[in-house]
Parts: sequence; C-alpha cells; structure tokens
Amino acid sequence: MREVAILGIGQTPVDEHWDLSIKELAGQAALAAMDDARRERADSLFIGNMLSGMLSKQENLGTLVSDWIGLLGIEAMKVEAACASGAAALRLGIMAVGSGVIDSALVIGVEKMTENLPMETTAALATAADGDFESSQGLSFVALNALVMRRYLYEYGWQHTDFANFSINAHANAMNNPNARLHERITIEAYNKARMIAAPINLLDASPIGDGAAALYLVPAQTVKPNGRKVVRLVGSASATDTIAVHDRPDPIWLTAAELSAKKAYAQAGLRPKDIDFFEVHDAFSIMSALSLEACGFADRGQGPRLAIEGDILSTGRIPITTMGGLKARGHPVGATGIYQIVESTLQLRREAGKNQLDKASTGMAQNIGGSGATIITHILQAL
Amino acid sequence: MREVAILGIGQTPVDEHWDLSIKELAGQAALAAMDDARRERADSLFIGNMLSGMLSKQENLGTLVSDWIGLLGIEAMKVEAACASGAAALRLGIMAVGSGVIDSALVIGVEKMTENLPMETTAALATAADGDFESSQGLSFVALNALVMRRYLYEYGWQHTDFANFSINAHANAMNNPNARLHERITIEAYNKARMIAAPINLLDASPIGDGAAALYLVPAQTVKPNGRKVVRLVGSASATDTIAVHDRPDPIWLTAAELSAKKAYAQAGLRPKDIDFFEVHDAFSIMSALSLEACGFADRGQGPRLAIEGDILSTGRIPITTMGGLKARGHPVGATGIYQIVESTLQLRREAGKNQLDKASTGMAQNIGGSGATIITHILQAL
Repeated sequence: MREVAILGIGQTPVDEHWDLSIKELAGQAALAAMDDARRERADSLFIGNMLSGMLSKQENLGTLVSDWIGLLGIEAMKVEAACASGAAALRLGIMAVGSGVIDSALVIGVEKMTENLPMETTAALATAADGDFESSQGLSFVALNALVMRRYLYEYGWQHTDFANFSINAHANAMNNPNARLHERITIEAYNKARMIAAPINLLDASPIGDGAAALYLVPAQTVKPNGRKVVRLVGSASATDTIAVHDRPDPIWLTAAELSAKKAYAQAGLRPKDIDFFEVHDAFSIMSALSLEACGFADRGQGPRLAIEGDILSTGRIPITTMGGLKARGHPVGATGIYQIVESTLQLRREAGKNQLDKASTGMAQNIGGSGATIITHILQAL
Repeated sequence: MREVAILGIGQTPVDEHWDLSIKELAGQAALAAMDDARRERADSLFIGNMLSGMLSKQENLGTLVSDWIGLLGIEAMKVEAACASGAAALRLGIMAVGSGVIDSALVIGVEKMTENLPMETTAALATAADGDFESSQGLSFVALNALVMRRYLYEYGWQHTDFANFSINAHANAMNNPNARLHERITIEAYNKARMIAAPINLLDASPIGDGAAALYLVPAQTVKPNGRKVVRLVGSASATDTIAVHDRPDPIWLTAAELSAKKAYAQAGLRPKDIDFFEVHDAFSIMSALSLEACGFADRGQGPRLAIEGDILSTGRIPITTMGGLKARGHPVGATGIYQIVESTLQLRREAGKNQLDKASTGMAQNIGGSGATIITHILQAL
C-alpha cells in the first residue's frame, strides 16, 4: 500500500438546507474539495450516507452525485455503516488509492435529516440498532445511550454534572466555526438545568441532527508537489466492530471496537496516545466522549470525565477534543460526520483553523462511531 | 495488486423467505461460503444491499451480519449501488484483498423484498432513479425499461416476439437450478400472449423480485493450495457509470457504462469477447439482454435479438447466457443478484453446474446493472 494524502477539502454549513436536495448538498461539498485540490476530475467517488433511502427516497447516490457534478463514467458507490458511514467511505478511498487501483478519489459524506417529521428521523436512526432485539423494544438511540450513561454513573460514582465541560467546550469551539450548526455559548448552570430527554441524558448532552455534506480529495502522497501548503497524510486507518446490541457485551460501558481500531491505527502509524496532538471524538452524547477517551488510551478506565473537569480537553490542554465544535455543536448529519471530522482535522494540520488553531497540531486523530459502539473507525493524520 | 481467487461460494434459494429476517438470510449464505472455503474466520465483510432500510427498517447491516455469524471485531460495511450493489461489494472485496490490506474477505449480497406491500417495493426500487426528474414523474423501473424497449423496436425494426428466446432460454435453464425462483418451462405462445405490464413489456419480459442471499469467500490467488478443485480467479473487475436519467443520454438505447466497464475488464484480463465462454447478463427485462450483448461486443449495434433468434445464447451456442436461469427465472433479489451471478459462474468454471454444465467453461463474464444502465459493473472469471 502506498501512502495516501488529502489534497483537497470541502464542506457545507451544517444547517437546515430545505432549499437543497441531497445531490445538491453533496455536490457543493464535492466541488469545493475539487476546487481546493485544483483538480477537475476524480477516478472514483465513494459517498458515505445512512438515511437517503428512508428520508429522501433516493438511492443509487454514488451515480446520482457523480452525474450531477459532471464526473460521467467514473466508478461510484454509496457506503453505509450507520453513523460511521463517512469514515467507512474514507476507508474505501484509502484502499482504492493506496492499492494503486486508481490515482484519485473523491470521498463524500452527506446526510439530509431535517425535512422529515422528527418521529420519522428518530425511527430511521433506530435502524442502526438490532431490529429484532433493540429498536423493536422502542429503544431509540438516546434511550440506548441513556442506559449506558446511567450504568457508567453507577459503576464509577460520577455525577451527571461532571460531564458538563464536554458540552461547554464543544459549544465554545463552535463559536468560531462558521459551518457549525449551533453558535451559542453555554454555562454549567444551563447544562445542569437543561430539559431532560432520557434520564440522565439532557438536551445539552445530546448532539443536534442537521443537513450537511463534507468531502475529501485523495491522492497518493508521493505525487503531491510542495506548493507552500502542508501535506496532510493518512498514516493510520482502521475499522473494528462489536456486537450490534449493547446488551450482548460483557462490559457495556467499554468501547471494545474503539480500543481495537485505535490500537490498529496506532500500530500502523507507529505512534502512541501521547503522540496525538488533538482528537476529534464522536460526541453524539457526552458519555461517548468519556468512553472514547478511555478506550483510546487517553484516560484510565472509568476516568474519562476527569479530562473534562481538569481542562485536559481544552485547546490549551493535554488532549484537545472537538476543536471545531464536535458533533455536539458543529452538528451531527450522521453519514457526513466522519468526513467533517477529517476536514476539521485537516484544517488544524494545515494551520487554517482560524481562531481555533491549536498551537501544536502535527498529528491528529478522528474517530467515527456507528450504532451504540458497534462500528468504530479510527484515522490518524499527520502533517510534518 | 495481487490476483484474487474465489475460495468458497454459498447461496440460499431465491424465494419468499417470510420465516427469515434479513440477517438470517445473509447469514445462511455467508456460513455456506465459509463452509465451502473450509474457513472459520474472515478479515472483513462487505455486504451489498439496496433496500434494507426502506423495506426491513434495518441499516448497519455489515455489523449486524458479522455479529450474527460470530465474526466479532472484524471490519464490516454495507455497499449500495442500486441493483448493482452485489457487484459493488465484490469490487471492494477485490480491492481489499488485492491490495494486501487484508488476506480474506466475505462478500455477501442480500435482499428481502416480498414481505412488503407490492406498491412499497415498487416505490423503494424507484429510488434507484433520479428522484427529481424520473421517479417524481411516476416512472417506475418497468416503465423506464418499457420506454427504452419501445424506442429500440422503433429504431431497429424488431418485433416484440423477437425477444422471446431470451425468456424461454432463461426459464429452461432454471429448471435444473434448485435455487431458482421459477421452475416453469415457457413457450413462445405463452410469451406472446402474456399479460401486459407496461407496453411493450409483458410479464414474461420481466424478472421476478424475491428474497435471497449469495456469498463469496475471497483470498489471494497465490495462497490457494491445489486440492483437486479448480481455482477460480477474478481476472477482470471494472465499474463505470452513466447519467442517472435515461433521458439525459445522447443515445438512450446504448449502454455506454456497459461498454466502458467491459472494455476495462477485457483489457485487465487481456481477453476479447471471442475468448468469453459464457456471459451472465443482467436480464432484469429482456431488452437489457440485447443491450448488454451489444455493448459488450457480442452483437452489432441493434442486432442483439439476432443472438436469441439464432440460438447463439443457448448452452450449445456461441455465447451462452443466463446459464442457471438469469434474473428472469432464477429471480432478482436486487442487492444479491450480482453475487448470484458470480456464484453461478463459479459453479460453471468448477464444472459443478449439474445438468446445466457447459462443455466449454474456462472463462466466464458477469455483468451487474444498477438503475437504468446508470451503474454497470463487469467481472471476468477464469479457471485454467
């Protein structure tokens, strides 16, 4: 496998885009990524998406989008791995370019979720869980995460308020991200008294859905000519799965698939957790930030909230997370989220992250999660 | 890229499987393929499927199935390319194993279509077309194909009855395939007077939907030890797209994407049409058999029906097609069809095709089509 680099990035704001169809939304991000890469063609197109069939009555999304943006004739397909669909599409792009099958790939993540009735969107999201044993019991994703968080509080003795800084940090970082869904600073008082959704998860533990698309233009790293811009290389890429149902796991408050995929990615990159300058976590719910930090080696088991309490996750801390707002405040257009994470990591590595630019940003990690920890994909990026 | 071989195959009958959930159906084929390969693990699982979200309210199918069959921890994802989803999943398996990223891949195609109301299934299938300009006009897939066939008859002066042998041959071949959906010989009289669906397409021009799953176990060809069984190698694999809407094509009765992907696959394999011993075409409608034969170089433009009339497509003919019944009589569980074609080709190449065994079967070709010629994937297989 030859090494793969990100030559271009593109994104739309995460918002309610009622005026754009799903192909138009994906097309905007894709054309922006090609423009950023200064390329007019791509050999293949891989598009991560979970819900287009159910919510937009549109499949064959790969060909639809490649036709729409004028890339007639190329290979195109859609990839689905629930909320990890974006990173799954990136895995394919890396395999295709890395193997030498093709020399350039457009990787897109897109989701359009706000035009439907909320109950339709919630039901569609529940299809990521086991239909026979979870969603058929009425368990939505917030309910599943509430059970996990409740167990976590019980086992390790934390209070709900100990998770406040995960959300406060995400909202603060989103203030400077023009593409974020929420631009609203929150306080610990607001967090503590927010409306309950599914105890113990309240409104400020949960990420908002949204419409959005993000895109990457991939090429073999060896072909990138220096042009004054840092070259962002994908030095680790790994995916692992767990039981689809949380209740089937020996330890329901440990993300085995996160640990597995992170260990593989670390090994590929020849790095350890202490070498990672920032970490784009999949904070669909605040509990997930704690679990990811633990599984990936940044905190001891049961000690994830300590990193929030002690400021380690801030941009000035030991392991900054959700540097552009995370799922919590940038928003979570599910199939697109994994690509937003990579676009934002690329901005940090290129030192184009504006007011949120980290001082030290040579190595970043992004983790995208599908289902309740069922499908977890980890990428490590470097610019040297 | 190292060469990839098919070490194991599995399939369920194409039928109404109301007693099996989609994960059980996929699991049966996958376990059969592992059993055939004499392997108990696989490094990755790629599953081709189009409709599980809409018709079974189930996504995250990759992880769901890998968990169900006991392959905990591995990489898994679903791939969608409309009715070409099966072959798209095979493309990924070939890239992943061929590139050396992994050493074994389970590739599954699955679809469950018969439990829903027919109008739901028809509407779900229509999501393969352009939602803004085709399905929103009420154009179902049979309607789209009817427009194409009508134009073809007009341009080249054929009669509807000239297509009869495509369907008669498929039904005859399915008689000896225990996994086929239809076991019913048909005559030219029956074909001519069959119930009209969308003129000029009648019931015996159209393939039946069905529930079914088929699976392949892929490994690097160089690792296969001779054990008395022929080694089936994938010597060509290519995908191409066209405009998603038929009305956007300069020539709506020519499959440009079939021509493109076949030419690429021929070039990879170093072969020409005359070297192909049999061809599993995507005969969703009889008109598609004619168009595929032309685009892939087996008939002159506008002369596809001649191969049916003159017996060239029979098992004793110049280019046998649909040797186990094709979509027309084996059945068309859409996301699974591309893998059924490869399973059946493997049976021919291994000389395990029973009463339908071709005398000469060293090189086979299979072509899987998504949408109305929008996404076309061609594979060439060889056993020497």
